[in-house]
Amino acid sequence: MRSAVRLLLPLFLFPLLSCGPDSGPALVAKSRRVFGTLPRISAKDTPQLVHLGRELYFSRELSVNRRQSCNSCHPIDARRPSTDGEATSPGADGQRGRRNSPTVLNADLNFAMFWDGRARTLEQQAAGPIMNPVEMAMPSAAAVAARLRTMPDHELFPAAFPNDPDPYTIDHAARAIAAFERTFRTHDRFDDFQWGNVSALSWKERRGLARFMSLGCTSCHNGPAIGGRQFQRIGIVNPYPTSDHGRFEVTKNPSDDFVFKVPSLRNVALTAPYFHDGSVRDLPTAVERMAWHQLGIRIKPADRDDIVAFLKALSSTDRLGS
Amino acid sequence: MRSAVRLLLPLFLFPLLSCGPDSGPALVAKSRRVFGTLPRISAKDTPQLVHLGRELYFSRELSVNRRQSCNSCHPIDARRPSTDGEATSPGADGQRGRRNSPTVLNADLNFAMFWDGRARTLEQQAAGPIMNPVEMAMPSAAAVAARLRTMPDHELFPAAFPNDPDPYTIDHAARAIAAFERTFRTHDRFDDFQWGNVSALSWKERRGLARFMSLGCTSCHNGPAIGGRQFQRIGIVNPYPTSDHGRFEVTKNPSDDFVFKVPSLRNVALTAPYFHDGSVRDLPTAVERMAWHQLGIRIKPADRDDIVAFLKALSSTDRLGS
Repeated sequence: MRSAVRLLLPLFLFPLLSCGPDSGPALVAKSRRVFGTLPRISAKDTPQLVHLGRELYFSRELSVNRRQSCNSCHPIDARRPSTDGEATSPGADGQRGRRNSPTVLNADLNFAMFWDGRARTLEQQAAGPIMNPVEMAMPSAAAVAARLRTMPDHELFPAAFPNDPDPYTIDHAARAIAAFERTFRTHDRFDDFQWGNVSALSWKERRGLARFMSLGCTSCHNGPAIGGRQFQRIGIVNPYPTSDHGRFEVTKNPSDDFVFKVPSLRNVALTAPYFHDGSVRDLPTAVERMAWHQLGIRIKPADRDDIVAFLKALSSTDRLGS
Repeated sequence: MRSAVRLLLPLFLFPLLSCGPDSGPALVAKSRRVFGTLPRISAKDTPQLVHLGRELYFSRELSVNRRQSCNSCHPIDARRPSTDGEATSPGADGQRGRRNSPTVLNADLNFAMFWDGRARTLEQQAAGPIMNPVEMAMPSAAAVAARLRTMPDHELFPAAFPNDPDPYTIDHAARAIAAFERTFRTHDRFDDFQWGNVSALSWKERRGLARFMSLGCTSCHNGPAIGGRQFQRIGIVNPYPTSDHGRFEVTKNPSDDFVFKVPSLRNVALTAPYFHDGSVRDLPTAVERMAWHQLGIRIKPADRDDIVAFLKALSSTDRLGS
């Protein structure tokens, strides 16, 4: 083993030496290939649609007992600017869902919505919780329509859908909420690094990024959202104890058993607890568990700490708030 | 006069009424037409080039007595994240220039550089102060080249210009600094508003925006940088007292007398003092003076205060820093 290291060492050193003592820009170049850079917010949605979406996002009229809004489980206000901090979120009557509520920040970058990917778009997602019996628990689309028609600010519907004879439907509400959510683009120090500002990340954070790429985390967590682009089985190397069959419940395809969407790691330090079941309270443990279950390695504490440092650099530097 | 108001009042009210009691989204739509939205940072520059640019931006090797860097007069670090706060900035030997140092934040959006527009690009601008006798005061391009060749981190030059036999020139340095500067894109609450989040601006700020457009400020201050897209004479209606002939000194064209670049107003609350001569200490006075000299009006205190509130919303919500 030791002689193998001795033989291979020059090969590992060569790329470091070939770009000078500071491998920062070379790391940026590699990282740009793996992650790319965050896309700009699209301006395709009308202000009227976004404005209606905002009102709906914060409105409790969409829950059966008027106790919950989208923002209850996916807070974007200053109070807790990313997730609700719960393993699983309480619904309108206090019942808990089975899965951890993800952040909606940058959610438009997900290739599919929900942990099991059962919705393809933000529009399809936004309609889901409204009539989910353990979430907002509205009994029917007709009941939702009645609420929309009588809610404060109901006149925003015809303004957002001027050519539509009946805009008071759950689908219209979902389209507006999705438009509002498409504006949730964050910015963090890793973005600055990706533009070439090497020193936007500390040495420790850069070591963490390099480790994140070399250990194989980027097989799943790649692209500008650092995830959100594929499904993957949890426990692919070492089984993860869960009774949740994930995507299998949607497709009934045996190859989808225990398969979940790979989440984006943008703002991950703000979104504890972790995993689909919200069972892991802290980021170091989450990194250890992922290394074990997905990569089959017992990660060294130093590597874990470097990766955690890198992941903390993915927190928005914008003052988030509504 | 009063009867004219009475006659015209319904005309003014009509657009407000026609889009419902909240004219927010209509204001966004209008504002989007006038200003558009900020473009994304271009990823065309290599990380090596940006990294070299960063080192040069903070390096004092580019000034004759090693006392000044680009960051001395155009600070982008946490200390003072936009301008140096001086009416005119001291050069290497303490001499003052004639004109106020502008911020470099979003500077790539300017259609021309310097108050008199004598440089067209960031590249051309960046080379200027290095050999300006009252700024960094390097005596010659050869002297600059000698500094670049021997400075710490000089090995970043061949990394940034791998196909160039002699990268140690002032033009290469300027290209790198420009690449670094192209990454200085800020984000503020007005951006959120432009995406359709009406409530990103308070009522007072929205009134200020509406006033900013209706009074005619946007004849000059338009586009995503809210300025930076044209030259204009200072004192076009009521003369502005200045001995600086501005663009005339570059073109010798009489029609360019007292003509200056219209500055961007992004982050304007962070860039006091104001105007090409840095003679105005505070934003309310700057707004009053502009209204008088450029528009020929004595602005009402309430309008001035609303516009100042709007302008303050143009301060970056990102934590700025190097």
